[in-house]
Amino acid sequence: MPDFSKLLILGPGLLGGSVGLAAKARGLARHVAFWGRREQPLRDALARGAADSIHTDLSQAAADVDIVIFATPTRTFSQLAQELVGNLPEDAVITDVGSVKTPVCREMEKIFPGRFIGSHPMAGAEKTGIAHARADLFENAACIITPLETTSPKALDAAHALWSALGCRIHQMTAQEHDQAVAHLSHLPHLIAAALVNSALAEIPEPWTQIVGPGFRDTTRVASGPPSMWAEILADNRAAVASAIAGFLCELEKISTALRAEDIGPLQKLLTSAKDMRDTLIQKKFSP
Amino acid sequence: MPDFSKLLILGPGLLGGSVGLAAKARGLARHVAFWGRREQPLRDALARGAADSIHTDLSQAAADVDIVIFATPTRTFSQLAQELVGNLPEDAVITDVGSVKTPVCREMEKIFPGRFIGSHPMAGAEKTGIAHARADLFENAACIITPLETTSPKALDAAHALWSALGCRIHQMTAQEHDQAVAHLSHLPHLIAAALVNSALAEIPEPWTQIVGPGFRDTTRVASGPPSMWAEILADNRAAVASAIAGFLCELEKISTALRAEDIGPLQKLLTSAKDMRDTLIQKKFSP
Repeated sequence: MPDFSKLLILGPGLLGGSVGLAAKARGLARHVAFWGRREQPLRDALARGAADSIHTDLSQAAADVDIVIFATPTRTFSQLAQELVGNLPEDAVITDVGSVKTPVCREMEKIFPGRFIGSHPMAGAEKTGIAHARADLFENAACIITPLETTSPKALDAAHALWSALGCRIHQMTAQEHDQAVAHLSHLPHLIAAALVNSALAEIPEPWTQIVGPGFRDTTRVASGPPSMWAEILADNRAAVASAIAGFLCELEKISTALRAEDIGPLQKLLTSAKDMRDTLIQKKFSP
Repeated sequence: MPDFSKLLILGPGLLGGSVGLAAKARGLARHVAFWGRREQPLRDALARGAADSIHTDLSQAAADVDIVIFATPTRTFSQLAQELVGNLPEDAVITDVGSVKTPVCREMEKIFPGRFIGSHPMAGAEKTGIAHARADLFENAACIITPLETTSPKALDAAHALWSALGCRIHQMTAQEHDQAVAHLSHLPHLIAAALVNSALAEIPEPWTQIVGPGFRDTTRVASGPPSMWAEILADNRAAVASAIAGFLCELEKISTALRAEDIGPLQKLLTSAKDMRDTLIQKKFSP
């Protein structure tokens, strides 16, 4: 178990709040401080036992901190980092929970050279906010950490220690590899689900939608996630997502071509390939 | 509760077997007969208590039947119907459980004028075969029945009585309306899920796939369904599916265009529309 003396979490939302709850539950740091812009979520974090101290003043929050976790929207990082850097101890390590890593790592490395390390705990839900934070949110979740070549061993060790202690399984890759993988496995599924809902519900008259079954419900589940958060994630990763869309369209075109053929053999082969690959992946990943 | 004296089920698979189990459990018919080509599944149906009698001879199976349910692959319907028609009582009603209705209703109307009525109980699962049949498979499932203008009131009443007694909520629409609705709500999600698996797992190196989360798992769940059955369903409904693909591509293109824009407002608007429509539909449909 690592022994952080003071953990500072920026942003008392679902992820930040859950880091606080888990850190307190697991005795990860002697002091957990929260910084936020608005009073109410901070007071909620305190009331829920996620925080030892709460702050709207960043310089006050930064005193004596040894690890900072950025858990605000990624678009706020740059500004916050610039306000924070002068107040933070020189040996403090900085990480985040953002869903896209290339732009964040590039920006933050400039402000915190050698001591920023990108993290992406793949936890979260359709619900947002401190009210839905849970001490067990990270248990058995994958957490990807994305060091740069310039990242110090100390920062790398701190990120490993932090996320392992919170219950995550750690994967290490470059920020570019991460962004490409999540483009295919998370971002593309999200916008496909949205396009599927928009097309189905635009093209079928309302009474017929009553025959909807569990297949449509599950295929489109992620489309019920928070739109403002997702629009930001997708835009942050737009190049990798555009490339994933292109790959998907190519596979969809193969299936469409097979569908037009009289012989159903080629169509069956494409569906078999998908079933086999999915069964292997899901069994390996989700079976106990 | 309708009082059928003899129910004949063609095909002791997941759906046929479940009709037999539910009919016996609910006392729907005095006698439940099964016909199949292979002995083993028939013996399994008998052993599981789904059947009172089992047959590989169609003329024997057809004696004194008042309602027949085709639960074999749709491509076998025409041939079986021609073998059956001479042996069946003239007032017997004929229905089916096929997932596509236009071609089936057209073909079967020629062989059984006025007394065939298409049915599509929207139940089933990734598992197939009599071993997975369940007496409660149809409870609260939607069942669409698709009468033609020439369908007799007797056939329509029999189909209503049958599926209601098995626990379904009945929806009535034309075969064309049905095929268009399921193209969007069931067939398109299936091939999108398959294309998503094929593109993601072709384009990301195997170690990275280990970061897959519940979003990808759920979005692609239906791709694990039986490929031979799905290839047949998709091919049977190819015109409506092709049109649904076109509608989907149009929505995906809108999202792609919004993704390229610097302002994330339009993207957020498209995601919000999807979230709102889905939330409304799913809440209306799946909430208790």
